[in-house]
Amino acid sequence: MKLLRVGESGAERPAVLVAGADGVERCYSLESLTQDIDGAFLAQDGIERVRSGLAAGSFAELEGYQEQRVGPPIARPSSLICIGMNYAAHAAESGAEPPTVPVVFLKPANTVAGPYDAAPIPPHSARYDWEVELGIVIGRPASYLPSPDEARGCIAGYAVANDLSERDYQLNGPAGQWTKGKSLPGSTPLGPWLVPADEVDSDRLQLRSWVNGEPRQNSSTGDLIFDAATLVHHLSQYMLLEPGDVILTGTPEGVALSGRFPYIADGDVVEVEIEGLGHQRQEFFRATTLGLAGAAK
Amino acid sequence: MKLLRVGESGAERPAVLVAGADGVERCYSLESLTQDIDGAFLAQDGIERVRSGLAAGSFAELEGYQEQRVGPPIARPSSLICIGMNYAAHAAESGAEPPTVPVVFLKPANTVAGPYDAAPIPPHSARYDWEVELGIVIGRPASYLPSPDEARGCIAGYAVANDLSERDYQLNGPAGQWTKGKSLPGSTPLGPWLVPADEVDSDRLQLRSWVNGEPRQNSSTGDLIFDAATLVHHLSQYMLLEPGDVILTGTPEGVALSGRFPYIADGDVVEVEIEGLGHQRQEFFRATTLGLAGAAK
Repeated sequence: MKLLRVGESGAERPAVLVAGADGVERCYSLESLTQDIDGAFLAQDGIERVRSGLAAGSFAELEGYQEQRVGPPIARPSSLICIGMNYAAHAAESGAEPPTVPVVFLKPANTVAGPYDAAPIPPHSARYDWEVELGIVIGRPASYLPSPDEARGCIAGYAVANDLSERDYQLNGPAGQWTKGKSLPGSTPLGPWLVPADEVDSDRLQLRSWVNGEPRQNSSTGDLIFDAATLVHHLSQYMLLEPGDVILTGTPEGVALSGRFPYIADGDVVEVEIEGLGHQRQEFFRATTLGLAGAAK
Repeated sequence: MKLLRVGESGAERPAVLVAGADGVERCYSLESLTQDIDGAFLAQDGIERVRSGLAAGSFAELEGYQEQRVGPPIARPSSLICIGMNYAAHAAESGAEPPTVPVVFLKPANTVAGPYDAAPIPPHSARYDWEVELGIVIGRPASYLPSPDEARGCIAGYAVANDLSERDYQLNGPAGQWTKGKSLPGSTPLGPWLVPADEVDSDRLQLRSWVNGEPRQNSSTGDLIFDAATLVHHLSQYMLLEPGDVILTGTPEGVALSGRFPYIADGDVVEVEIEGLGHQRQEFFRATTLGLAGAAK
């Protein structure tokens, strides 16, 4: 079962993709069940209610969804939390030792974009980089959890993310803070789907990325230093995780920062994919400083 | 004119405090004008509409508001952005050189609390610290602004903030990231009021803090290394600022991190104040790990 949101940005409508008894995948509207796929929906047993509704044949088929934009599979999260250097080989290519406790930073939630949206390269950026990541979507509040086992019950599901990062802004940030390189507009393509946690073996997923069709990253979540349940347990000691929050679990080796590949250029196509969670494709363009500066007046 | 939100947490109602021709301050409900004081309200010329309504006598007086809880003066922001070491003397007491460009980090927006709410000390915290700060509330979208002058027009107003910080979690965070010490539940008391930008000289405000009645911080925003307009211009080069977003501009010297004062203990009362923007008072208690871990099941 794959939850998704289809329609123009800011006007996405909830839907579900599911294979029928004939093995053919069909898309159903969830508008009779919920206004949106968001934290409130997940907290109110939304996933179980979708399953019940599908079993009862309650939802209308959504024809022609393939012609519509796909948005991020969850309405804007409250917090977008990221884990750094969570694959040993990526820590090495970044010139760092593997961490002994999770490295944590935040991105603004307004960086979330659809998985196929055209993606802006910041106007003055010279080192814009891709990062395929397993995204965790929180389904229940998590605070001071007693164990990783308890954390498992707080995970609603998983989604693909691309944690786009401007390396000059990130690594030259004063006082060592990464925020400036991790906050750029459109820098978190998410989706296409939210797949329920009980349908995913989050410890054995292949992650891949490509630039202009050439392979870049190719690893498995089996190589994560800290797995999903460990991360949710750990984070809950430092912050209140809320339904709809998204945790990006870190990226494996094979990014431009390694020095082995060029950074993203105007016109490049970046694709990222996680086994069972779907495929993203972004065409990049050089943003100008004109757009919103004008709109803001 | 002071915008505020009164009522229990999650059910605050919008209001305004204003002095009449007789010099007596009265509180009026804004419920006939808006559901809440939030980004959408500010973006739709909310402050001007309050002024027009007051001039026309459109609002009902809110009797007995003094007996009600005061919440943060803006509904949960999308982004809560913080500036580090923005007073030279505080940078020195933290053992750092004054920065030459703004130091930027983020807090989760769900850390925002009311100005008089009882404040939890994290269960295992040994170094929980106060930080009085001038908060900027954004009123118009800001992205790639051409100059600090343009930034001024994006500021809706100002509010007092206490940027509570766990120093062990902040300064021992792996890869130097401060997030774990800046994300704790209830760690951003905000308010009591949002004062419109055109009624505030943000460059000449006295900031003070006290613990159990004893003075701690006592400085002026005149000592800010980067002023409000400079910060909004700078941040807009790295992220999209949206109406309702809050920027905490950094804290002056006089925190416990200096070594001159003890950290916050169970039962302590912390007060912070900024001239013209109001006074906060938090009574601290030691949080347990039981509360939400139970509720989350």
